[in-house]
Amino acid sequence: MIKLYDVELSGNCYKVRLMLSLLGLEYERVPIALKKGEHKTEEFLKLNPLGQVPVLRDGDVVIRDAQAILVYLARRYGSEDWLPTEAEPMSKVVQWLSVAANEIQHGVAAVRKHFLLNAEIDLEQAQKKAHQTLQILDKHLSERFCLECDRPTIADVACFPYIALAPDGKISLELYPHVVGWIERIKQLPGYVDMLGM
Amino acid sequence: MIKLYDVELSGNCYKVRLMLSLLGLEYERVPIALKKGEHKTEEFLKLNPLGQVPVLRDGDVVIRDAQAILVYLARRYGSEDWLPTEAEPMSKVVQWLSVAANEIQHGVAAVRKHFLLNAEIDLEQAQKKAHQTLQILDKHLSERFCLECDRPTIADVACFPYIALAPDGKISLELYPHVVGWIERIKQLPGYVDMLGM
Repeated sequence: MIKLYDVELSGNCYKVRLMLSLLGLEYERVPIALKKGEHKTEEFLKLNPLGQVPVLRDGDVVIRDAQAILVYLARRYGSEDWLPTEAEPMSKVVQWLSVAANEIQHGVAAVRKHFLLNAEIDLEQAQKKAHQTLQILDKHLSERFCLECDRPTIADVACFPYIALAPDGKISLELYPHVVGWIERIKQLPGYVDMLGM
Repeated sequence: MIKLYDVELSGNCYKVRLMLSLLGLEYERVPIALKKGEHKTEEFLKLNPLGQVPVLRDGDVVIRDAQAILVYLARRYGSEDWLPTEAEPMSKVVQWLSVAANEIQHGVAAVRKHFLLNAEIDLEQAQKKAHQTLQILDKHLSERFCLECDRPTIADVACFPYIALAPDGKISLELYPHVVGWIERIKQLPGYVDMLGM
């Protein structure tokens, strides 16, 4: 059975749990206690030398990094729908995987980490990046149902968690009505689960 | 003809120029003067709302983000070699696209930007991240010819520029012999060009 090395409140882990649920896949959760340093043990570093969750194990295959895991699940268990393989639509989807790994991670996700876990960051810079990204998303989504391809893809799954969780970092989404509409559409997808699996 | 909106000294633009050269593709460079703010004009923001180079235009297709452009070029003009489409190898390659977009960008690339352009950053934190990433790469490359798949892929092209340019940021690669060996192997690839196109 698929194993997910997981932290419940991590938005990156939630991306993977959401994808697994959207695909209707059974899996086993292996909770990793960050406070106990379980992500820095020799055993865990063998799975992921970067010492980060999530990690997915599927038989002999071990994949680290939320975005890469979404690609794995889409290609292995999904259809072309979740990740098209033609040059143009695939690269359009990958654009948003980079936004998820960079702008979202160092913007809304960093601000959330600061408020939830007292993480030391340059708060002002992260808040600025958060709002810049939200503005770009809002404009992009003003004429689209989903981020790309007129249907849900892993671009949406990669960007959704930390954007939907922005209020955890005291960032209101009020100014971004198209983002709010998109969040509501994602929540209507068959198989949708929230961060706590509800 | 393919158009690349380009900044010569940007490692992210160099990734794309390197890929275009490895694939033997002709293209036109459109230099963007960052000092004149040409990446923040209304016209440029229509191409890339994030206001960043590189952007690639190929007929009607416009792709932003270095990693996404590598995916586009590999799928459109390369063979399966540069980006396999099976679940496991594809996601292994994507792991390194995330490292390029996140750890490398906020480590070696940020330190280089600080020393070349006086960019204001948390230098100590970026240097720490740079060395952590180099250690991980060095260990990974100690038993491999390339990053994944026993052959050059877009994983190598995405990670190579800022790693090879680390000395611009006064980061010596002396401690990382396997990284140095890998850099030398990349330089031997048919079609290889350096940052200045030599």
